[in-house]
Amino acid sequence: MVPPARIITLTTDFGYRDPFVGIMKGVVSAINPAAAVIDVTHGVAPQDVTGGALALAAAVDFFPEGTIHVAVVDPGVGGNRRPVLLETDRACYVGPDNGLMSLAAGRQRLTRVIHLSNPEYHLRPTSTTFHGRDIFAPAAAHVSGGVPPEQLGETVEAFEKLHIPAPQRQGDNRVEGQVIYVDGFGNLTTNLRREDLERFEPGHVSVRVGDRVIRGLSPNYASAGTGNYLALVNSWGLLEISRCNGNAQAALGAGVGARVAMDTDGGEVS
Amino acid sequence: MVPPARIITLTTDFGYRDPFVGIMKGVVSAINPAAAVIDVTHGVAPQDVTGGALALAAAVDFFPEGTIHVAVVDPGVGGNRRPVLLETDRACYVGPDNGLMSLAAGRQRLTRVIHLSNPEYHLRPTSTTFHGRDIFAPAAAHVSGGVPPEQLGETVEAFEKLHIPAPQRQGDNRVEGQVIYVDGFGNLTTNLRREDLERFEPGHVSVRVGDRVIRGLSPNYASAGTGNYLALVNSWGLLEISRCNGNAQAALGAGVGARVAMDTDGGEVS
Amino acid sequence: MVPPARIITLTTDFGYRDPFVGIMKGVVSAINPAAAVIDVTHGVAPQDVTGGALALAAAVDFFPEGTIHVAVVDPGVGGNRRPVLLETDRACYVGPDNGLMSLAAGRQRLTRVIHLSNPEYHLRPTSTTFHGRDIFAPAAAHVSGGVPPEQLGETVEAFEKLHIPAPQRQGDNRVEGQVIYVDGFGNLTTNLRREDLERFEPGHVSVRVGDRVIRGLSPNYASAGTGNYLALVNSWGLLEISRCNGNAQAALGAGVGARVAMDTDGGEVS
Repeated sequence: MVPPARIITLTTDFGYRDPFVGIMKGVVSAINPAAAVIDVTHGVAPQDVTGGALALAAAVDFFPEGTIHVAVVDPGVGGNRRPVLLETDRACYVGPDNGLMSLAAGRQRLTRVIHLSNPEYHLRPTSTTFHGRDIFAPAAAHVSGGVPPEQLGETVEAFEKLHIPAPQRQGDNRVEGQVIYVDGFGNLTTNLRREDLERFEPGHVSVRVGDRVIRGLSPNYASAGTGNYLALVNSWGLLEISRCNGNAQAALGAGVGARVAMDTDGGEVS
Repeated sequence: MVPPARIITLTTDFGYRDPFVGIMKGVVSAINPAAAVIDVTHGVAPQDVTGGALALAAAVDFFPEGTIHVAVVDPGVGGNRRPVLLETDRACYVGPDNGLMSLAAGRQRLTRVIHLSNPEYHLRPTSTTFHGRDIFAPAAAHVSGGVPPEQLGETVEAFEKLHIPAPQRQGDNRVEGQVIYVDGFGNLTTNLRREDLERFEPGHVSVRVGDRVIRGLSPNYASAGTGNYLALVNSWGLLEISRCNGNAQAALGAGVGARVAMDTDGGEVS
Repeated sequence: MVPPARIITLTTDFGYRDPFVGIMKGVVSAINPAAAVIDVTHGVAPQDVTGGALALAAAVDFFPEGTIHVAVVDPGVGGNRRPVLLETDRACYVGPDNGLMSLAAGRQRLTRVIHLSNPEYHLRPTSTTFHGRDIFAPAAAHVSGGVPPEQLGETVEAFEKLHIPAPQRQGDNRVEGQVIYVDGFGNLTTNLRREDLERFEPGHVSVRVGDRVIRGLSPNYASAGTGNYLALVNSWGLLEISRCNGNAQAALGAGVGARVAMDTDGGEVS
């Protein structure tokens, strides 16, 4: 039986105005027409490595084993940062060694890191400005077609890891964190995890962002009533601040980095 | 002979910034790698159920029989509204029971409605905020792979239907309607249908929106000359107000709900 | 062995808000379910035939032989301009005869031009406003499925060609050109080609746009340091003006048509 085509995903800050993503897909199709390419998103803000890393990390658990994830948010393209392939027990990651893929790969067991240094697998001429086309898409296509990753370059030890700030416990009744991601609906995702919250009764917490205080955690977006702010644990398992049928970011003027505090009156889960 | 892979389409208000759509495609590919996923659009305005319903309804006639359409514009996610599958004689529709799929399904003969209540076919843990990922994509993928819809939950009788206002005849020489959809070019689609117009000679009508009056119906966009307003019957069979090489919405400041009237001097088609 | 599915690419100004692109894919899938459809971009600015032509021309070299490229930036739809298929030694192009496909086809050897006049291969009823759905997608799908292009209409001699202004040499030490494309990062692509530049030592040139002067050519985006302007030869082989980790278009207020001059102090490549 023919195995299903191997999946290649794409996550970039290339946007939707230009042919860049289409060009990468052309490169893949020319090398391995049987590869199935799926877009994770191309709407990462320009040069926002952290935003791209979070988007990719949110997606990878949902793809089948063996998927090859290409990620390109790459302000250092053509400079010193290395083009790499990270191999884990579940997937491969292809992109610049700038931390972009480290959150996703960090959810899995890393098996090796390859520096994509073998020019035989680069498109020629190789630009210094579009490695998505010239190095990353070809690498993913070749691996999807059966080329062993070690042929693409030498194994290296280290790779760049991204630092997402951890929430800080302040005494027994407060945890402080920050907004780390804002989605297209204007929902504010924070770095407070379900685990940071679950000692407390949902009805006994209040969430503070700027001078806005939200009392209690909501089970879903609709329960707060149109125009009201709410806090909930979102689909990534993180505390999120939202506005029912509205846009919390626009209304609160709060973006990535905005401080968020969760207080409790001490009502703990029994 | 192997039948062609079953098609799953996606219509959402998730936009293009975030990984949400990519995650849904990952879920589909993990359940049924042979499904072919096609985006209808993800650019529906946030929470605009009517806009999403019109977009989907405009698309479904052009897909092959047996297509599974997933639609997610779902401000009530995780609340009381039911996740459903609508089966017609030509297609399946998977999404929230909030009217979103009713215009499309209403173009076909409904055969049954399934409440997607069987947790065996939900992703676990099942979030209260992202049923596109946890309920709808899995349902579509399972059905595309051959699971009979009735396994996904119990058959129910009713489903929510969306109400699109009908145009009003005012005497013999006037029909009043409104703008129901604005496209990315700024063209204003109204609820006046070809049938409402065809008693009249195209050269004998005038179309009024705000204080602008457009005389006659144009055969196409270009015939009016750059910068001029025009009215025509568009590709959905509806009266549309447009500006040649321009953006009628921006120039007229008229959006969904704006009143439109069509008058005739009585010149009827013989 | 089954040959790989034939690829159909799409390049349009339809944007991402509406179902238009999804509808075209539905039409393709209904005619030839085995065709593989790849988006080049749908973010061409409305009615910007030149922008669309440049995007398509940048992409076609990277797709496999036999690819069918559909392009729709078509303000004259339904009027006098002809729907055509251009066949070259490497690819087919399907779209309006308004110059949109001429830059891409001009990179290859033209073999024939077909006027898509055979109504048997149009969707019926055939609108005057959406030939992407009614003429171009069906034509591409039929050709991808094996219908010989000559069945789609009669062979014609001429087709519309787009004129991209050529750079002007001013004496020995200056070349003048202009911005011809602005990408989503705000990078300004000019009409100065690698060949116009390579007589000169990169360290001996200066590039002028508005009242900004950039000295020297950079090897990549990062080398200039955040916030600084830079000039480089981009992935299309053209001189590009960029701002390191910024948006040159927004900061310089320079768009398509802005004058660019490259001066040299005479330091020629030995």
